[in-house]
Amino acid sequence: MRNPTLPRVAVLGLGLVGGSLFQLLHHHGHPVVGYDVDAATRKLVAQHHGGRVCDSICEAVAQAELTVIAVPVWAVGQVIDEIGRADYSGLLTDVVSVKAPIDQLIRQQLPAARWVGGHPMAGSEKTGFVASSATLLADCPWVLCLNQLEQLDDWCDVARHITQLGCRVIPATTVEHDEAVARISHVPHAMAAALTNTAASGAAGALALSIAAGSFRDATRVAAAEPNVVAAWCEANSVAVVSQLDAVIAQLVQLRDALRTGPELAASARDLFSRAQRIRQTWPREAAHTTRVARTVGAIGGVGRAGGWIIQVEQDHVVAALP
Amino acid sequence: MRNPTLPRVAVLGLGLVGGSLFQLLHHHGHPVVGYDVDAATRKLVAQHHGGRVCDSICEAVAQAELTVIAVPVWAVGQVIDEIGRADYSGLLTDVVSVKAPIDQLIRQQLPAARWVGGHPMAGSEKTGFVASSATLLADCPWVLCLNQLEQLDDWCDVARHITQLGCRVIPATTVEHDEAVARISHVPHAMAAALTNTAASGAAGALALSIAAGSFRDATRVAAAEPNVVAAWCEANSVAVVSQLDAVIAQLVQLRDALRTGPELAASARDLFSRAQRIRQTWPREAAHTTRVARTVGAIGGVGRAGGWIIQVEQDHVVAALP
Repeated sequence: MRNPTLPRVAVLGLGLVGGSLFQLLHHHGHPVVGYDVDAATRKLVAQHHGGRVCDSICEAVAQAELTVIAVPVWAVGQVIDEIGRADYSGLLTDVVSVKAPIDQLIRQQLPAARWVGGHPMAGSEKTGFVASSATLLADCPWVLCLNQLEQLDDWCDVARHITQLGCRVIPATTVEHDEAVARISHVPHAMAAALTNTAASGAAGALALSIAAGSFRDATRVAAAEPNVVAAWCEANSVAVVSQLDAVIAQLVQLRDALRTGPELAASARDLFSRAQRIRQTWPREAAHTTRVARTVGAIGGVGRAGGWIIQVEQDHVVAALP
Repeated sequence: MRNPTLPRVAVLGLGLVGGSLFQLLHHHGHPVVGYDVDAATRKLVAQHHGGRVCDSICEAVAQAELTVIAVPVWAVGQVIDEIGRADYSGLLTDVVSVKAPIDQLIRQQLPAARWVGGHPMAGSEKTGFVASSATLLADCPWVLCLNQLEQLDDWCDVARHITQLGCRVIPATTVEHDEAVARISHVPHAMAAALTNTAASGAAGALALSIAAGSFRDATRVAAAEPNVVAAWCEANSVAVVSQLDAVIAQLVQLRDALRTGPELAASARDLFSRAQRIRQTWPREAAHTTRVARTVGAIGGVGRAGGWIIQVEQDHVVAALP
């Protein structure tokens, strides 16, 4: 007998994140069905993992109460189209790393959907179901976008399911999410690429790469990510990425100009390092206390803006952890 | 009875790198003496670790055949001064991450020294003897600077000792070293600081830091490093750091401008990601073959420029590994 509090979930796309979610849901006892556009992936998942694999989106969402879109950003439009043709009426979320373009597709193609944009903050420079695992998403920060009152009940339902998987639900508006992700993921990917190319360039590149050690290894790890995926993120989130690239460039220019003026760094340039150390040494911040929060858009959104997250969703309130 | 092929080594400075070297040398059976300006560190090392600890540089180098300067860049001048006053005549090397300023100090203060500048490529965002360990330097790439014929015999002697510790000796000129280290260490530290500050800035900083995951964690790890140390590296290596910062900034500007022009990234901007992926996926490069190399400045330097390293030093040749 299945636990009636666990909804039937359809995961559309069984790559790194979708595949990991599929396994995590199965591990937690959710009745879960999966779909992937790639027949070989469907076969692999069906043969080796729990949960049911379907041959079409229509079939996958037929019995689902919660459907999760887990395909690359450029494929989302077609998936939404097929969900619409299936007359699906359950909760709908996704795991795509940019939220505004997905919101827009939903408004255009499926305006009546019970839509809550999502983004689990876990990944890898690797791709595909072969790289997925039930542990990838365990305990991760999971953004769920809350923009307006009409979404509140659906948001709380999706948030409850995600908290029950052991993840920290971070409320944010679509705009807040996209700006934050530019800061902590998209721009870091761009910087990793720029650093890798710089290190390797010209006749001096071979020596530089042979002496490169820990700081290069970690700073450039995500430069090995699939370039089309990273380019698609940057394109889909271009306004925020441009703005955050500007902020990074301004600091690097400040440091460069101070070094040119040298020999000693000006205090303002030296302060770049001091500020960064203070921030980085206290990251990640632990939960200092938990608190009951009213079930309103403003109160829940305030938890995210304060650096907190939702750990429990009740009928009349939510429980938040705050740093 | 000590192994007569293992020289008596003095390690001056018992912080992260000096302390790790002290332990590694002891582990390999070298008779090793240590010195640190900090009395509490001397006491800690003397009580808990093998090897002898001295209360002065004069005493530490008295019996040494190889002396290693392992103090921060700003303290090297005074240490060289004390080595000079001790009438030390053995081999002299260091582990400081910038080489041109140290070369200059040696020329000014100790022109007759048997000097071979060195730089083991291993570190941590932590500092001090408490963070050191015999494993930190095991198997690491270890640059030894070879600039001119007069150094060749001393270079080969130091290189033989370092290869016998299990490290890969990478030959480079002082200028080559400083440019390469700007690329793979100093600029990455600057970028980590800029990224950390950008992520945390303003009212949106708390949310960004709470959703930050693996790519932020790795990209900013070294932002937790001691700011005065990083600033001192950049100051001491300002010409190379400025030049490599320019190269990174140019790519970030290219990407930003392409995103502004959007919606689709120009092929040249997209190529930043493709090139970086190709480079990063094949890094670090393994040794493809080993070869005998003539014991000349040109031949040995060519190994480093080709991305290779020295694994063995013999009377009339060296053995190199090449990727």
